[in-house]
Amino acid sequence: MDLNADLGEGFGVWRLGDDEALLDVITSANVACGFHAGDAPTMRRVCAAAAERNVAVGAQVGYRDLAGFGRRRIEYAYEDLRDEVVYQIGALAAFCRLAGTRLRYVKPHGALYNAAAVEELQAAAVVAAVGEYDAELPVLCQPGSVLAQLTTGAGLRAVAEGFADRGYRADGTLLPRTAPGALVADPAEAADRAVRMARDGTVTAADGTVVPAAVESICLHGDTPGAVDLARRVRDALADAGLPVRPFA
Amino acid sequence: MDLNADLGEGFGVWRLGDDEALLDVITSANVACGFHAGDAPTMRRVCAAAAERNVAVGAQVGYRDLAGFGRRRIEYAYEDLRDEVVYQIGALAAFCRLAGTRLRYVKPHGALYNAAAVEELQAAAVVAAVGEYDAELPVLCQPGSVLAQLTTGAGLRAVAEGFADRGYRADGTLLPRTAPGALVADPAEAADRAVRMARDGTVTAADGTVVPAAVESICLHGDTPGAVDLARRVRDALADAGLPVRPFA
Amino acid sequence: MDLNADLGEGFGVWRLGDDEALLDVITSANVACGFHAGDAPTMRRVCAAAAERNVAVGAQVGYRDLAGFGRRRIEYAYEDLRDEVVYQIGALAAFCRLAGTRLRYVKPHGALYNAAAVEELQAAAVVAAVGEYDAELPVLCQPGSVLAQLTTGAGLRAVAEGFADRGYRADGTLLPRTAPGALVADPAEAADRAVRMARDGTVTAADGTVVPAAVESICLHGDTPGAVDLARRVRDALADAGLPVRPFA
Amino acid sequence: MDLNADLGEGFGVWRLGDDEALLDVITSANVACGFHAGDAPTMRRVCAAAAERNVAVGAQVGYRDLAGFGRRRIEYAYEDLRDEVVYQIGALAAFCRLAGTRLRYVKPHGALYNAAAVEELQAAAVVAAVGEYDAELPVLCQPGSVLAQLTTGAGLRAVAEGFADRGYRADGTLLPRTAPGALVADPAEAADRAVRMARDGTVTAADGTVVPAAVESICLHGDTPGAVDLARRVRDALADAGLPVRPFA
Repeated sequence: MDLNADLGEGFGVWRLGDDEALLDVITSANVACGFHAGDAPTMRRVCAAAAERNVAVGAQVGYRDLAGFGRRRIEYAYEDLRDEVVYQIGALAAFCRLAGTRLRYVKPHGALYNAAAVEELQAAAVVAAVGEYDAELPVLCQPGSVLAQLTTGAGLRAVAEGFADRGYRADGTLLPRTAPGALVADPAEAADRAVRMARDGTVTAADGTVVPAAVESICLHGDTPGAVDLARRVRDALADAGLPVRPFA
Repeated sequence: MDLNADLGEGFGVWRLGDDEALLDVITSANVACGFHAGDAPTMRRVCAAAAERNVAVGAQVGYRDLAGFGRRRIEYAYEDLRDEVVYQIGALAAFCRLAGTRLRYVKPHGALYNAAAVEELQAAAVVAAVGEYDAELPVLCQPGSVLAQLTTGAGLRAVAEGFADRGYRADGTLLPRTAPGALVADPAEAADRAVRMARDGTVTAADGTVVPAAVESICLHGDTPGAVDLARRVRDALADAGLPVRPFA
Repeated sequence: MDLNADLGEGFGVWRLGDDEALLDVITSANVACGFHAGDAPTMRRVCAAAAERNVAVGAQVGYRDLAGFGRRRIEYAYEDLRDEVVYQIGALAAFCRLAGTRLRYVKPHGALYNAAAVEELQAAAVVAAVGEYDAELPVLCQPGSVLAQLTTGAGLRAVAEGFADRGYRADGTLLPRTAPGALVADPAEAADRAVRMARDGTVTAADGTVVPAAVESICLHGDTPGAVDLARRVRDALADAGLPVRPFA
Repeated sequence: MDLNADLGEGFGVWRLGDDEALLDVITSANVACGFHAGDAPTMRRVCAAAAERNVAVGAQVGYRDLAGFGRRRIEYAYEDLRDEVVYQIGALAAFCRLAGTRLRYVKPHGALYNAAAVEELQAAAVVAAVGEYDAELPVLCQPGSVLAQLTTGAGLRAVAEGFADRGYRADGTLLPRTAPGALVADPAEAADRAVRMARDGTVTAADGTVVPAAVESICLHGDTPGAVDLARRVRDALADAGLPVRPFA
């Protein structure tokens, strides 16, 4: 199983999350590329630190919206979104190159992640950007999403991810953040869910249904209190269960 | 002789200069990378159009200053400037890749060009960025400038450029824009100066001194009225003089 | 009848439209406030020039989106949108003060105009911003729109505007830009439509229906070729018909 | 004695300093206006919270440089800087109005503060902006600085501020941040220095010289660890010494 988290999400003097601590836990780093967060020195530092630890670097591409942290949907024209994704991938790839490594994958951030999961235009723009830049790059996304379907349809590799700290519906989709049970705050429970995803390929939905969750990566959140502790618990639980933790890429 | 000009310097709805017309005249396109000007769709379009015409694409890297068009000096920290140059190079390299070509060189824009000509910190930041990204990339700059010296000192190739439409001092530096004779508006005179640079490696200074100007490229400005006409005159004059016009890279 | 147009929509070195020429034709200037377009020196200049000509100044408030020129919908949180509108109004009011005049009205721009015409959240955010800042300020908007309704409902004045150069449906709404007849390019026809709006309070829809169009202002577009000429024709036609042209505010 | 501090210096999701805690200690809040930091909802919230506590609100105006937090010098044209200061003042004044209070003063931030202390062009731009907007607004600045001189020369009120937590030279200027003794980290010592400034109008320089420091306000820093504790100590020490703490404005 792979463990991924968002890194490098500060900007200028502003910091967010504990990149250093997370890099010791995760196996794949979704590095912000400067549009919703992230600046050039941070991108360089995170890529170098990830390369040192054999953590795979992915481009966490987002909307051009620092003020909204890429969390509010923007009605992009297809070409604009596609080309802004290419731009971000290229910028991050330069820092991978300086760090003596290569860019390993692409993952959309925030509102783009959500939009590309259900909207054809935005999903297609992401897929076109990745495919035109490097058709060998996998796209990290939700299984069953429009993005996953278009990625596969274009002959690219879609890597399915699950969430150990989020509640699921019986149809395999996530509960909205405001619903009861949407967030799994207890590290022990999150760790347990991660083990079942990795070992059994399932997750228990809010209504008790056991749902298939054949994921190759588990997403850990880095910007909440206790995030690093929860991440460590998940990693330790996987290790204790004899399940290897390594990059999918 | 190579002819270079700044391209892709619009942003969003705003346009500047006539990219299409200039691409039929020049042999090297300094493409804006999104910090002082330029957006992703424009970068893509210009790279593709340049590749079609065998015009070499260079990264026109600038300060992060859309409001000032990169024309006012910013007191950057060394690391910040170095990494922002890497970022811009990487972003443009992605569009070169999509266009089936490669990035050929780097040229600083505006206030960064001026600062790097005389200040060690800013020149060193540009050189470090280029050297770390790809030590084979030449840097297009003024002969004798601090940037030229540090580029050569770092084992990189500095490509000297001259200005057919700007007045020179007897020491080989440019007249300030406000001085009499600073701008050569007459296309015939500019064309004549270009021919002498290319054939004799000299330019006549404002005081009549004949100054060495052993340049590999002539910079043509694209954002003034009559710019395209002047550029065509320069190109035609070089051709009439039997001097080949081709990319330096 | 009032004639309004968007002004000050450049940014930094980039220009858009002919502000000076339009100021001699219109009676109300929708001045961009720096979020979708407009910078501080431009705002100052346009406010001063408008005040000299007794043209009323309105705040043309938009999304924070220079790259998209405020033309693509953003899924704002209510508070964020409301407060960004307040911010823009305050900034423009400062330049009105310097010009010895007062801010006279508020008009949303581009995608915000369109969203506020049909969405309650965005319309309510605009109305709250205006009402909290100065409940005497009118809001310039489409008659019958959600924005018009909420403006009136909050006890503020909604000023209805019509479009002399746009085609209408029989229900009084505008044809989408891509539909046949959506744009009235002929200055004579646009002028004729303006006269009928001013004199009879009607407009002829694409299907021939005569539709009520009781508007207090006619919006003229400034960023298209021939825009200034069309605007002059409209103004002259109103004058020839004995219909006074003056600010609604 | 007045106590001032920088507030509202987050942006979007990013926070900086503890605004709420500082508001219970200080008497004047330098509120960031969106150019180097600060966004509209934050400006609104801080203005409202300050008004509730009778803390005076000042416009902390800065360079247009979110990435650099306004801490690196930019070579502005006079008109651009002047008008961007007007813009920021107007924006903040709107939120003061919503909070039922008025803008009380202007203080430049970071590199603009430093530049305006020694450079005529930048100081004059700030003074012109304030004078044109409202000649009754005081400017908070270092005594003896170029900004202080030009402010007074223009007939505006310059309010002198001192620093309880910074080391001074014998000539009354601050030690550079890298010099030994530049920062006074010990809260007790800072509190003692504040009392002497307030009671005796003096400060002891690094070389032991007792220097005049006839200041009306003491600046407290909010973005360092222990900042709030140090601020409280300063306030308590002033109270214990029977020295009233209240806004200068």
